[in-house]
Amino acid sequence: MDDTHIGLAHGNGGRYMRELIDEIFARHLANPVLDVQADAALVELSASEILVTTDGFTVQPLEFPGGDIGSLCIQGTVNDLAVSGGLPLYLTINAFIEEGLEISLLDRLVASAARAAVEAGVRIVAGDTKVVRRGEGGGLYLATTGIGVRHGLARLGMARIRAGDRILVSGPVGDHGIAVMLAREQFGMRGDLCSDAASVLPFTRALADLEGLRFMRDPTRGGLATVCHEICRGAQVRITLLEHAIPVRDPVVSVCQMLGYDPLLLACEGRVVAVVAKRDASEVLARWRALPGGEQAALVGRIEAGQPLLVIETELGGRRVLEELEDEPLPRIC
Amino acid sequence: MDDTHIGLAHGNGGRYMRELIDEIFARHLANPVLDVQADAALVELSASEILVTTDGFTVQPLEFPGGDIGSLCIQGTVNDLAVSGGLPLYLTINAFIEEGLEISLLDRLVASAARAAVEAGVRIVAGDTKVVRRGEGGGLYLATTGIGVRHGLARLGMARIRAGDRILVSGPVGDHGIAVMLAREQFGMRGDLCSDAASVLPFTRALADLEGLRFMRDPTRGGLATVCHEICRGAQVRITLLEHAIPVRDPVVSVCQMLGYDPLLLACEGRVVAVVAKRDASEVLARWRALPGGEQAALVGRIEAGQPLLVIETELGGRRVLEELEDEPLPRIC
Repeated sequence: MDDTHIGLAHGNGGRYMRELIDEIFARHLANPVLDVQADAALVELSASEILVTTDGFTVQPLEFPGGDIGSLCIQGTVNDLAVSGGLPLYLTINAFIEEGLEISLLDRLVASAARAAVEAGVRIVAGDTKVVRRGEGGGLYLATTGIGVRHGLARLGMARIRAGDRILVSGPVGDHGIAVMLAREQFGMRGDLCSDAASVLPFTRALADLEGLRFMRDPTRGGLATVCHEICRGAQVRITLLEHAIPVRDPVVSVCQMLGYDPLLLACEGRVVAVVAKRDASEVLARWRALPGGEQAALVGRIEAGQPLLVIETELGGRRVLEELEDEPLPRIC
Repeated sequence: MDDTHIGLAHGNGGRYMRELIDEIFARHLANPVLDVQADAALVELSASEILVTTDGFTVQPLEFPGGDIGSLCIQGTVNDLAVSGGLPLYLTINAFIEEGLEISLLDRLVASAARAAVEAGVRIVAGDTKVVRRGEGGGLYLATTGIGVRHGLARLGMARIRAGDRILVSGPVGDHGIAVMLAREQFGMRGDLCSDAASVLPFTRALADLEGLRFMRDPTRGGLATVCHEICRGAQVRITLLEHAIPVRDPVVSVCQMLGYDPLLLACEGRVVAVVAKRDASEVLARWRALPGGEQAALVGRIEAGQPLLVIETELGGRRVLEELEDEPLPRIC
């Protein structure tokens, strides 16, 4: 392709669109199942039950320390399947590209998606591209759908959660939110903090045989606190989080103090929150801490009987109720 | 929800987002498989081979005569599975919503998607919403992924196409392209032409047992001519289209003459192009014409041995080569 930037003709179904798909998407994402000439991909499954999930990605800037929208669209969808007890197999990708996007940037992002797919062991089986006029998009939006099979026998779900269960998190919270925010020039701050964006498959697979495993979720939009609110509502339980036990990196604490953010509400893209029976909590910690990136895994709270409510307990024993997120501090964080 | 327009807080993972999902998406799209609390849906399949497809939708305006982006995102994905010989079962939907979109409009569009899903016999099993800032979206973009099983034994594909095969179209071409274009106020024209947007399942299922069926495709972006170019390239054949045999409605002809468009390059969203063995062509015509909306089905061309080339033959026997589409006359048509 001679062009350096995306034009409307890249979206019209004709020669330029074909070249865009061949030279960028098909080139990077090639695998035995992907046929860019077909309307639908034929894929084989070994199970009669499959897991399906879908997610949209609008992160801004498109590249940030520790990742980019390309790798994120793979990891985010892999992670939704992983925390549901699934082994991701196949992914589809939709790209909404704004007229004027640099083609070299698009190429880097698709190459990054391809690497993330290989790392997570998934194949891209179908895709679509649309081009929208300048001013009608934010550079690039991606939508990814994932198909997987269950890798454990357990059916996880909020309905399995019981009073007395423990809540664990696989690593420090808020890195992604702060790393993306700092990458926006408008904040005039710089740091060496990287996003935690990554596949969480090693962390979910490590727990697959644990009978006491009740529920897992990756704390993305709205962070750890929002996952807890969802559990409170879904399982009709009260949750107490131990503030001092929640791992938060120093730069995240500093930025939150400066700007008035709560780390518990910041997005992660490579962490798992798990609810497990009390008896299995130490086993989860041991398994997670043995994994690369799991060194700071921690037991951060407990499930209690009572009205749905999220209570934060401070180190000195003080307690405060944390309400559900209402305003929007950081749009386009994922 | 008290608000009348989408705000950034509808995208943050907190209360407003939950209310948006509950009160609009979950309310309209409810079915036994959809669980808006889950990260992934568990669905059952009766086959070990599945068909997967994905498509993005950016049509502008969001509502047009004969359809809207909600119904289109269902029909378009159903159709990609249908022309691949599939029976669509499950769909996922991603919504990229621009800050400021009227909530009543969003509600109509999601309701329309729900109706189209019921009509096509598919279930929405997963979804995601993202909100982008004013000026970073075009009101609403949707991405839909479809999962289906094959309903015939035949594996369709361009590799099956042979010289001598016939090309048929299930109805008039270009209605969608012109209807959407006229719905844009900038053209200052009005007509009573409706988009052809619809599920093509009745048309593809009608041919499921035909041994001579080689290949089907729905002529969306780039129209009938682009499908023919794809066949020329994919099957390494020459195609002759009979201009006078191609059904085009009068208002489409008129607008094309006024604005200099070629109806063969205009998008359809409810038509099928089929390539069949010569001996089956009249059977296809008979079956299609017996269906509602198939009255104008026509045999429009033939496959010939030779260099890949699309030739248009006029009523008087003149011949011209139609090149692949290069410029973009109508962005955001689907």
